[in-house]
Amino acid sequence: MSFAARLHAAADRCGAPLCVGLDPFPEKIPSLFGDRGSQQALENFCAAIFDAARDRCAAMKPQLGLFEAYGPEGYSVARDLCREARGYGLPVILDAKRGDIGTTAEGYAQAALGAAPGFDADCVTVNPYMGLDSLEPFIAFAARTSKSVAVLVRTSNPGAADFQDLSVDGAPLWTRVAEALRPAQARLQRDEDWSDLMVVVGATWPDEARRLRAILPAALFLVPGFGAQGASADAACAGLRGGKGGVVNASRSILYPSSAAETGTMAQWRVAIDEALAAAAAQLGKEG
Amino acid sequence: MSFAARLHAAADRCGAPLCVGLDPFPEKIPSLFGDRGSQQALENFCAAIFDAARDRCAAMKPQLGLFEAYGPEGYSVARDLCREARGYGLPVILDAKRGDIGTTAEGYAQAALGAAPGFDADCVTVNPYMGLDSLEPFIAFAARTSKSVAVLVRTSNPGAADFQDLSVDGAPLWTRVAEALRPAQARLQRDEDWSDLMVVVGATWPDEARRLRAILPAALFLVPGFGAQGASADAACAGLRGGKGGVVNASRSILYPSSAAETGTMAQWRVAIDEALAAAAAQLGKEG
Repeated sequence: MSFAARLHAAADRCGAPLCVGLDPFPEKIPSLFGDRGSQQALENFCAAIFDAARDRCAAMKPQLGLFEAYGPEGYSVARDLCREARGYGLPVILDAKRGDIGTTAEGYAQAALGAAPGFDADCVTVNPYMGLDSLEPFIAFAARTSKSVAVLVRTSNPGAADFQDLSVDGAPLWTRVAEALRPAQARLQRDEDWSDLMVVVGATWPDEARRLRAILPAALFLVPGFGAQGASADAACAGLRGGKGGVVNASRSILYPSSAAETGTMAQWRVAIDEALAAAAAQLGKEG
Repeated sequence: MSFAARLHAAADRCGAPLCVGLDPFPEKIPSLFGDRGSQQALENFCAAIFDAARDRCAAMKPQLGLFEAYGPEGYSVARDLCREARGYGLPVILDAKRGDIGTTAEGYAQAALGAAPGFDADCVTVNPYMGLDSLEPFIAFAARTSKSVAVLVRTSNPGAADFQDLSVDGAPLWTRVAEALRPAQARLQRDEDWSDLMVVVGATWPDEARRLRAILPAALFLVPGFGAQGASADAACAGLRGGKGGVVNASRSILYPSSAAETGTMAQWRVAIDEALAAAAAQLGKEG
């Protein structure tokens, strides 16, 4: 079963193309999960979020940088979580933004997408700056395992304009990156409609999403920036088609929905998370 | 003491601007260090290389992707090695090629440059594609700790041309990236001559190195591609000035110098490594 098919099946089950971003900010994890900044709090919080969200989203996206800040122990927690999600059948997009050449890129691909001692994630985010040969080991790994690679194309941060928008022969650099990904889109296409190639395009830029969709009609979109980053569901779904063709990520708006969730009891916390999940799914389900 | 001063002092001690890249390919580590692919072999090999190279190079550069391929345990080995090198006073450049935004970038910066549970490296390689705001947390961390950040500008792989060389208003993209780094160069400049900002420029492209030197006169160069990747010492040192202003990295030519080193006794292995270190230092010491 292709990655695209697994992602779409999960979105159908929960009724929305919602990806839950797992961004464990140490200072935001409620103290009821353990001492602030402790590995125990990290583990308990991630387990509780997984329990709440596993049937109510199309994918989970652990933000590896925030796990790495805990040291190798945090890295282990992220890996265990990826494996549990995969065992449950929930697609996992490991947000690691890797990028290197040759055997080193193979090492990263093996670590992210490979079985033990790897994370066994379904997809890993990668950075294209070093060129197509730096993406090749990830794409090759995805091709032979029915997994996916999510290439940064047009990101959602203000600074994305610094280089991604520079004009190359009259078109922004990010469109050149997208054009260069057409062979990868074709290589990872396993059914009529969709490729297993993912591309990252910020929800704050709906015009760019439509333009990117024209360049890469079969690619899956990974759309950050919905929710706390300010983009509307309408904008976030600009590049999707009838709820298919990608997922929209929400992190902070679901993980840390209110100060009541941060200071209440475990039962109150769970109610707040359930409400946040329902609200995000309702918005995206209507638009997607 | 600034990162630049520590790097130059280490280069003076060993007589060459040589950086030893620690690329632990599982299939290339001699079996005398342990079972192929085992964490024990990784640990023993890294300890032996550190012992051989610590007084004979200006810096060490662990290639984190190859450690990650061993799982969280490999990640721990890299961290222990960084700390040992730092305790010894040898500058460590963590080759992780990170890049993300906001709090996630802060997480990566903390993991790479921060004290426990971080790696406590002196410098970390980062990817500029996401824009200046994605580099800011790394630069801010370096600024307040007298450490460094090495930004990918023009890499040494053939695919570097795909995007880095695209023409933006008549000049290649990588020169635009370099120009955008001028404020960071100034912020990290702690003495008259040198900044603690590092930039990565491939040894296979000496003309680019000279051009980059004109754009960023005070930046330190991290030059990969010398040795096994085919660049001459002359080409590798094109952007340096009298042995100052950066380091040239050699990995495979030092770590895996000959088949005799791979299959011989421990004493034979050590002789081969010592000879490889001496040869690289002699070539670079003459040119640098």
